[in-house]
Amino acid sequence: MPYSIFDIATALGLEAQGDTDLEVSGVNEPALAASDELALAMKPEFAAQIADGQAQAAMLWQGADWQALGLRAALLAPRPRHALSGLSAMMDPGPGYGGGIHQSAIVDPSARLGEGVSIGPFSIVGAGAEIGAGTIIGPQCHVGWQSRVGAGSLLHTGVRIGARVTIGARFIAQPGAVVGGDGFSFVTPEPSGVEQVRETLGRENDAEAQSWARIHSLGGVTIADDVELGANACIDRGTVRDTVVGEGTKIDNLVQVGHNVVIGRNCLLCGQVGIAGSTVLGDNVVLGGQTGVVDNIRVGDRVITGAGTMLMANVPAGRAMLGYPATKMDAHVESYKAIRRLPRLFREVAALKKAVSKPGGDG
Amino acid sequence: MPYSIFDIATALGLEAQGDTDLEVSGVNEPALAASDELALAMKPEFAAQIADGQAQAAMLWQGADWQALGLRAALLAPRPRHALSGLSAMMDPGPGYGGGIHQSAIVDPSARLGEGVSIGPFSIVGAGAEIGAGTIIGPQCHVGWQSRVGAGSLLHTGVRIGARVTIGARFIAQPGAVVGGDGFSFVTPEPSGVEQVRETLGRENDAEAQSWARIHSLGGVTIADDVELGANACIDRGTVRDTVVGEGTKIDNLVQVGHNVVIGRNCLLCGQVGIAGSTVLGDNVVLGGQTGVVDNIRVGDRVITGAGTMLMANVPAGRAMLGYPATKMDAHVESYKAIRRLPRLFREVAALKKAVSKPGGDG
Amino acid sequence: MPYSIFDIATALGLEAQGDTDLEVSGVNEPALAASDELALAMKPEFAAQIADGQAQAAMLWQGADWQALGLRAALLAPRPRHALSGLSAMMDPGPGYGGGIHQSAIVDPSARLGEGVSIGPFSIVGAGAEIGAGTIIGPQCHVGWQSRVGAGSLLHTGVRIGARVTIGARFIAQPGAVVGGDGFSFVTPEPSGVEQVRETLGRENDAEAQSWARIHSLGGVTIADDVELGANACIDRGTVRDTVVGEGTKIDNLVQVGHNVVIGRNCLLCGQVGIAGSTVLGDNVVLGGQTGVVDNIRVGDRVITGAGTMLMANVPAGRAMLGYPATKMDAHVESYKAIRRLPRLFREVAALKKAVSKPGGDG
Repeated sequence: MPYSIFDIATALGLEAQGDTDLEVSGVNEPALAASDELALAMKPEFAAQIADGQAQAAMLWQGADWQALGLRAALLAPRPRHALSGLSAMMDPGPGYGGGIHQSAIVDPSARLGEGVSIGPFSIVGAGAEIGAGTIIGPQCHVGWQSRVGAGSLLHTGVRIGARVTIGARFIAQPGAVVGGDGFSFVTPEPSGVEQVRETLGRENDAEAQSWARIHSLGGVTIADDVELGANACIDRGTVRDTVVGEGTKIDNLVQVGHNVVIGRNCLLCGQVGIAGSTVLGDNVVLGGQTGVVDNIRVGDRVITGAGTMLMANVPAGRAMLGYPATKMDAHVESYKAIRRLPRLFREVAALKKAVSKPGGDG
Repeated sequence: MPYSIFDIATALGLEAQGDTDLEVSGVNEPALAASDELALAMKPEFAAQIADGQAQAAMLWQGADWQALGLRAALLAPRPRHALSGLSAMMDPGPGYGGGIHQSAIVDPSARLGEGVSIGPFSIVGAGAEIGAGTIIGPQCHVGWQSRVGAGSLLHTGVRIGARVTIGARFIAQPGAVVGGDGFSFVTPEPSGVEQVRETLGRENDAEAQSWARIHSLGGVTIADDVELGANACIDRGTVRDTVVGEGTKIDNLVQVGHNVVIGRNCLLCGQVGIAGSTVLGDNVVLGGQTGVVDNIRVGDRVITGAGTMLMANVPAGRAMLGYPATKMDAHVESYKAIRRLPRLFREVAALKKAVSKPGGDG
Repeated sequence: MPYSIFDIATALGLEAQGDTDLEVSGVNEPALAASDELALAMKPEFAAQIADGQAQAAMLWQGADWQALGLRAALLAPRPRHALSGLSAMMDPGPGYGGGIHQSAIVDPSARLGEGVSIGPFSIVGAGAEIGAGTIIGPQCHVGWQSRVGAGSLLHTGVRIGARVTIGARFIAQPGAVVGGDGFSFVTPEPSGVEQVRETLGRENDAEAQSWARIHSLGGVTIADDVELGANACIDRGTVRDTVVGEGTKIDNLVQVGHNVVIGRNCLLCGQVGIAGSTVLGDNVVLGGQTGVVDNIRVGDRVITGAGTMLMANVPAGRAMLGYPATKMDAHVESYKAIRRLPRLFREVAALKKAVSKPGGDG
């Protein structure tokens, strides 16, 4: 699917210069670009590599001197990374799942499919389920009993949507993602060692051995519009009410969202983040990779965590947090500098002790 | 499936008061409950919300004044959270997989199925496998060659049980769970850099580059009765003998259990916990979310860890542990308080040095 | 499949002693071995257990006195763990997937299959895909559009290879592994709070709320020969160029490899490791379980990390690293010793202050 530079500029609202009739059939890094590919050199430091490749056109930062780079045409973007969003959508060849309802797919007669829905081989749509117009259900997927997936969604291979899950429009789920597993909720007949330790913070656990009784998850999961869910990521159903993910929130691979969790709008949860049961996240929260959030706390709007942070208590809005346990990012950096200086401090205190212990100590 | 208050009280052994013929068809949070739903107000602080909803009956703590709350009937539970276990089981509408052996399922002629087994679409049961009575195998599952799943079990969609795995009764596996992947066991022809570093704790790794030879996993996995396994969680097979999970142990989503690990009875492994090869856990161990446990150590009975703890050495029975590396929970809390006070300590030592260095130092 | 001691010695290049015609049909731990099983007693400390079992032959360390252990025959290995690699391969009964192309499998007419390829039930091979000779695709797998899997590979159940992925020979993928999910790459129209915080390290995030625009992943994944990928592990496709995994690298369960990452040869990535986007790992890197690596850094050849380490900056070749944030392993151990001694240090400084504040302070 070749596009002219003019086409791209028009579609993305960018400035085009030079021979805008020039056609490109793909994009590439500057040094690797073939003569029919658009080079991406979105910062001045990548410009030199254009000469190493064959590109005749490039997407550049605003104000770039494309002629000096030996190009025939250029797209100039005020924020090239944002322009790449639209450009990559135009150029995406897609997963190639094919259209229509595959003859091997099993769709319950009571399921309602919107116009143009496609369902891949070996996929299953359960009783009473509802699939919005234009949604693509890839191969080997499962949409459970009485669940709803909004219009314009894309489920990649092997996505599993459990029963009684409600999902908005333009949902994207990567392979193996699971929505609506049962919550991890167990209770002992008598107060357990965990309950004791939470109260005493560390007394020996001498609670009598008990076995765990299962609390079934009667709630579902509600996911708003424009959410994306990563490969093999998991969102559990709620105990009584639904687990909730807000509009525009993006969730990366292998993330765990526990039962009853409420996530706000436009959050970003990076790879392997884990959020324990009943915790509430505000809007525009960004959690770095492997961040953990304990159960039953509140994380305010716009909170940002560095990779591997462990949030163990409520966090006010706007905080940048880091560390285990999490502290404000700058305080954490200070603490670690201090820890590195500890050996010297120990030596200094030892010297002081010596000095002071001498009568008339003169250091 | 409506139940009268009397029915519920009888089934769960609870005390019922008021109009016990009143029927409810579901449960809900107090403020959200419809007039035919049972409100769950298991602690006094939730009682006020009953007035915000339509519930005519509620499950309350023992001694609650249900009449003052405007209710027509009440269930009174000495430990309401435990009562919720039985109640939620009664009310669970289930995953809706349907019964019988689906015509698309592939069951090897040599497999033995107990009475009332159901197998979902696109599921596979391998040669010599044995499925206990009443077990539900959901859609798109795989039970491998010569494996056994006990009676009354439930495999949700896409569960993968490898070959030569033995599982007890009432096993529950959430979508995408994997039992019996190969262990991660590799060896170099000559001692590797890892072996060097384990001995020298941090000498530069200048070992010659080598490639890894695979050790095949000849063992299987043995899982006792009443175990639950979370979505996309993984339990690897043993190298020579089986990896073992004890009776009543519950394992959450995205947990990793390495080869040769032995887990005791009634343990709780929260989301994203990882247990490396050949480690042994006692009974009633509770590992908080994202806890890691290194290989070849022993974790005693009743050990409890906070979220994100990293156990790097044997832990005696009954310990509550926290931190990276793990220390006793109270010691860890002390350490972190001390770290926060470090900047002040640095200032104090600097002042002392100044004071002491002055002849006749008078502070 | 019984083998004589002579057969095994010949196949593995080991020394055999005693009655080398003796046949064994399996291997086991010394105490559990039946009379037709080979006992594995690879270190002197396991020798005593041979008497507890029924084994007539054992694999022992070099120089072992097998006659004194009551055995009829012995295999003596200079590095028994390495010998176990070959031995376990001989003894592995395999996953039992069966051969040929299962009649339920869907293979696009344009796909090219090498000689002896087998494809399991409910598996799908997309248009233009290419499968090398002798490769076994297990049940319920998916190989996407225009992807290639090299000769002699083994995909266990439910493995998902996305479109435009290139994989070398002898690839092994455990159940549920995903190659070629989309990268987690999003951008806001204006600079986001994350960009602010990266620059200011912890200023309050007061960025205006914005929503995230998706950057599509136009690149694929390139995996070299002899790579293994664990259960439910994920490797994302690149944004423009491919994500790359080098020859001989082994990746454990639930590992996340982000978009654009480049991993060198013969690396070992243990369970639940996460590598964020665009990071580069050298050769022979070994990352302990739950290690995290932030985006856009370089990790040198032969770097080794302990479990749970978080690499937040470039690491020079050969370093052994530990901790959060990571420091050199020995420095980390020192720091933690110092932290444990902090309470005493606080007491000492308090005493010093008292001493110094007394005129004529004599401690």
